[in-house]
Amino acid sequence: MPERVGFAGLGIMGAAMAGNLLEAGHDLVVHNRTRIKAEQLTQYGALVADSPREVAELSDISITMLPGPSEVEEVVAGEGGLLEGAKEGSLIVDMSTSSPPLARELARTARERGVGMLDAPVSGGDVGARNGTLSIMVGGEEDDFERARPLFEVMGETVVHVGGDGAGQVVKVCNQIVVALLIEAVAEALVLASKAGVAPDRVVGMLSGGLAANKILEVKGEKLLSHDFIPGGKVEYHRKDLGIALAAGREYGAALPVTALVEQMFGALVAKGRSDWDHSALLTLLEEGSVDGAR
Amino acid sequence: MPERVGFAGLGIMGAAMAGNLLEAGHDLVVHNRTRIKAEQLTQYGALVADSPREVAELSDISITMLPGPSEVEEVVAGEGGLLEGAKEGSLIVDMSTSSPPLARELARTARERGVGMLDAPVSGGDVGARNGTLSIMVGGEEDDFERARPLFEVMGETVVHVGGDGAGQVVKVCNQIVVALLIEAVAEALVLASKAGVAPDRVVGMLSGGLAANKILEVKGEKLLSHDFIPGGKVEYHRKDLGIALAAGREYGAALPVTALVEQMFGALVAKGRSDWDHSALLTLLEEGSVDGAR
Repeated sequence: MPERVGFAGLGIMGAAMAGNLLEAGHDLVVHNRTRIKAEQLTQYGALVADSPREVAELSDISITMLPGPSEVEEVVAGEGGLLEGAKEGSLIVDMSTSSPPLARELARTARERGVGMLDAPVSGGDVGARNGTLSIMVGGEEDDFERARPLFEVMGETVVHVGGDGAGQVVKVCNQIVVALLIEAVAEALVLASKAGVAPDRVVGMLSGGLAANKILEVKGEKLLSHDFIPGGKVEYHRKDLGIALAAGREYGAALPVTALVEQMFGALVAKGRSDWDHSALLTLLEEGSVDGAR
Repeated sequence: MPERVGFAGLGIMGAAMAGNLLEAGHDLVVHNRTRIKAEQLTQYGALVADSPREVAELSDISITMLPGPSEVEEVVAGEGGLLEGAKEGSLIVDMSTSSPPLARELARTARERGVGMLDAPVSGGDVGARNGTLSIMVGGEEDDFERARPLFEVMGETVVHVGGDGAGQVVKVCNQIVVALLIEAVAEALVLASKAGVAPDRVVGMLSGGLAANKILEVKGEKLLSHDFIPGGKVEYHRKDLGIALAAGREYGAALPVTALVEQMFGALVAKGRSDWDHSALLTLLEEGSVDGAR
């Protein structure tokens, strides 16, 4: 008998991922705080549950895709949460970008109740979610990973078991650190070139051939040059992810000085009302911190 | 009649570049502060000059490859320097990594005396210098660029005229900014992973596929994992280059907050006696700033 699948959290990402699972023929029980988003999936055969607890009661594997750690903690371990309804031998898979220490704590709590838990955050954005081409980084036990793998392979293209409890979240925040710092690196170079009177597109072209080559230059170079800040990855989400990285750094004792600085810069963008801009808008902060006509 | 070529500054880079020009059949007049290094090239047909001035007196095109801005200023515009000996209609090509404002000032001074000047810094390191595969970023006038191009094509593989006076130096410091910040980005990610108990090689593997992909991860990932800090690019040179970037930022009014922080970190490595380590040794600073066994 195929496993019954539950899905809690139907934002832009979650709705697309759940849609792909339905299309692949999985019976789905869905829940969303704003109920209308769950009801939109009934036309594809989904059943709507009244609470995360009910999702877990009706499912063998319950997936969550939520905004961040506080929502994950509430939906998994809070009142009316998944753990209240989860049967022994069932599995919870959190695909949100969340806190590594929280992922470890929830996995421990779940296991004490005979429930398995994986942390399985994704990268690839809403396009990857719609097309089923996400990269999925999975932490947890091998057996649980193998059990959930058929679902991951519907939602993602690159599916890797990166380690034990919390390892998926650790790798995801590492990814977010590197992406943020790449954006800042390219932005500082472009601002200097521009202020020094050198065509920034020459910089993008020249740097693409050597040790400075990177995916941000390739994917966002043109957008940076034309000041196109339509997201893509939003400032507010990337700020949240760096906040998770810094909290993990404090928990595990890792020094992250530049991550801390760039997190503050994302905070400044939020303060300027640019939460919804693409994360490459770090460039605008540098431009506004620069002096016009210094030379 | 082929142009007579002069070459001042025969360090590891300069000696290799001059050697390639000799091998390509150019008559070379060479000078080096430590004379023995110049004399080593006489076996390949080079003539040794007693001063930069004498290099310029005997050459149509004089090339410099020096440690930094202060040496460039001295050798080009100081007492006994190239400009004292340079004939009207001759050309000076500075291939050192130097200061953009200085490059502009020297080009202006040279032109007032009827002498052309290009700034043409390189990337690709000693390996690129030996193999004639350097990337050469050239600033200055189009005619002067075309005149020097046959020499550039002996020394380099990618030769690009990136703009007017100083533009080569601007693009070079932009390159050095991005490379330094990429190293720091990868290092912060690896330290967090390691402290959080996740195998850092999983991080390197996972990040190589997405928006975080970059050349440092590809070229230096293994070395970072094995703590191999044999240079490659040395800490002291990269620190110097970031110093040039920050000075240019002040001159042209560009805000470079993360470059400033990473320059300080390179300074801390110098203070710890690691000037000669590979620039990826930024990792060691993070490790030593991290707490053992926080969890």
